Amino acid sequence: MSLLTVGTVAFDSIETPFGNAERIIGGSCTYIAKSASYFTPGVNIVAVVGGDFPQTEIEKFQKQNINTEGLQIRPNEKSFFWKGRYHLDMNSRDTLVTDLNVLADFDPIIPESYQDCKFLLLGNLTPDIQRLVLERLRNRPQLIVMDTMNFWMEVALESLLKTLKMVDVLSINDEEARLLAKENSLVKAARKILTMGPRFLIIKKGEHGALLFHEKEVFFAPALPLEEVFDPTGAGDTFAGGFIGYLAKTNDISFENMKRAIVYGSAMASFCVEKFGPEALDSLTEAQIQNRVQAFKSLSSFDIVLK
Amino acid sequence: MSLLTVGTVAFDSIETPFGNAERIIGGSCTYIAKSASYFTPGVNIVAVVGGDFPQTEIEKFQKQNINTEGLQIRPNEKSFFWKGRYHLDMNSRDTLVTDLNVLADFDPIIPESYQDCKFLLLGNLTPDIQRLVLERLRNRPQLIVMDTMNFWMEVALESLLKTLKMVDVLSINDEEARLLAKENSLVKAARKILTMGPRFLIIKKGEHGALLFHEKEVFFAPALPLEEVFDPTGAGDTFAGGFIGYLAKTNDISFENMKRAIVYGSAMASFCVEKFGPEALDSLTEAQIQNRVQAFKSLSSFDIVLK
Repeated sequence: MSLLTVGTVAFDSIETPFGNAERIIGGSCTYIAKSASYFTPGVNIVAVVGGDFPQTEIEKFQKQNINTEGLQIRPNEKSFFWKGRYHLDMNSRDTLVTDLNVLADFDPIIPESYQDCKFLLLGNLTPDIQRLVLERLRNRPQLIVMDTMNFWMEVALESLLKTLKMVDVLSINDEEARLLAKENSLVKAARKILTMGPRFLIIKKGEHGALLFHEKEVFFAPALPLEEVFDPTGAGDTFAGGFIGYLAKTNDISFENMKRAIVYGSAMASFCVEKFGPEALDSLTEAQIQNRVQAFKSLSSFDIVLK
Repeated sequence: MSLLTVGTVAFDSIETPFGNAERIIGGSCTYIAKSASYFTPGVNIVAVVGGDFPQTEIEKFQKQNINTEGLQIRPNEKSFFWKGRYHLDMNSRDTLVTDLNVLADFDPIIPESYQDCKFLLLGNLTPDIQRLVLERLRNRPQLIVMDTMNFWMEVALESLLKTLKMVDVLSINDEEARLLAKENSLVKAARKILTMGPRFLIIKKGEHGALLFHEKEVFFAPALPLEEVFDPTGAGDTFAGGFIGYLAKTNDISFENMKRAIVYGSAMASFCVEKFGPEALDSLTEAQIQNRVQAFKSLSSFDIVLK
């Protein structure tokens, strides 16, 4: 089933305790599309870059079956740039630089050929732009997944709450869930957020896994214990890309299938953090993905027969 | 199968953001024995209390089928006392008072009737005393599980390493694993600790679940997402008590069965934190435990059929 994602395609500079990477390719849309491309052909992207963005990277998208018709290029401007530094525990980071550049007045134009998309993932952007995308789609997609971040909860809460009413699945991390719901208990926070619009809530806990809430049900997928987390940048987006990619591939948005999608998303994220930037997402094989999912099965399965 | 646990029986004063409890019953041996008693009859304890310890509490142990023959009472002395305060996130705490009292010169005498015990859980005590217990048992138990804490890694590392060589399973939390192995990655830490003596390593991550490592295998059990964590005191001991209680009941120490034991231990810990002190462990029913284990199954099970 056709999939559309809207977000950022950008440059990142990343400092971790294990090394630095200067101006590598990043952005939510990049991670989402590359991750989803392993599940469903023809992932459609809407994003904007400047003239400094390498043509070779655009060709790499295309080789991965990612449709770049909606990727706007502004030759005389610069791409969005983010620089961050991870702390020793890799669970927290400081933002050192945010240069909006082309993103400052991003107008998300939807190519005509994207109009029939059934699965939509709104990557982290201002909630105004996310809503604009929804308004510009003539038919409501079958499933709308929204990612966002604490920043918008602090500076644009009203707009965020409006967008929230229009989506099916919200994907945020544990801190953001607590902030949005003003509840310290994640269970209480989840219950509250499920009254704000989305019918499904994913709470990402980084190295501690991810929770999926729906009505009275809850599912938990662990993160794979890894020897080395090299660079967590983009892990959440990679997770979301695998999640929606799997749903689009199987065309099944039941809670049971979403559980599987969460596991596939977690598997994709586990690859992402093993290398700098999105590099690990450039050349995975079907067998590698299946092996990783098998590792998740082994990690969390047990057989207890209850009376 | 017969089970022996050695640890503390004590008074705790606990401050949490949700309230305070003054001089309630606590201690590692208390939580372990009460938790294990739901799985196997005749849990044997070795511990020491002062004359201030209420006879009614000893009778409660006995009503729960806990054998108190090895509980030494020193009429003219005072019981071990600990006072702690939890931070708002309930994941960290400060120790405000530690009065060793009777614990200062605790001599773990093993009653003759305990000598045939097949399952031994060494609760958190000085590693010297833990080793003394092992030396005083004429026959090596079939399974020896050891709990310890960061404090002994700092002040008695050499003795701790000696004890470690004599046990089958070590149960510690994530911080302690990193400290003991001097490795930030839990996977690397686990691999290192598995060369120090124990064949199995449990790493407890509190609200983030627990990991079981053995040779090249790893199993993860989540913690149940709870609406309210009321008091985390004793959760780790309750977990360990459920773990070894289940193993003793089933008399099966295979890795597969240890996975089940981890789930039962996690279920018991989830009850523990819902009330102050060990109160929740006084009157559980078989049905409540089965329902809780069912909740763990629902939480973490998914069906992905791989090629």
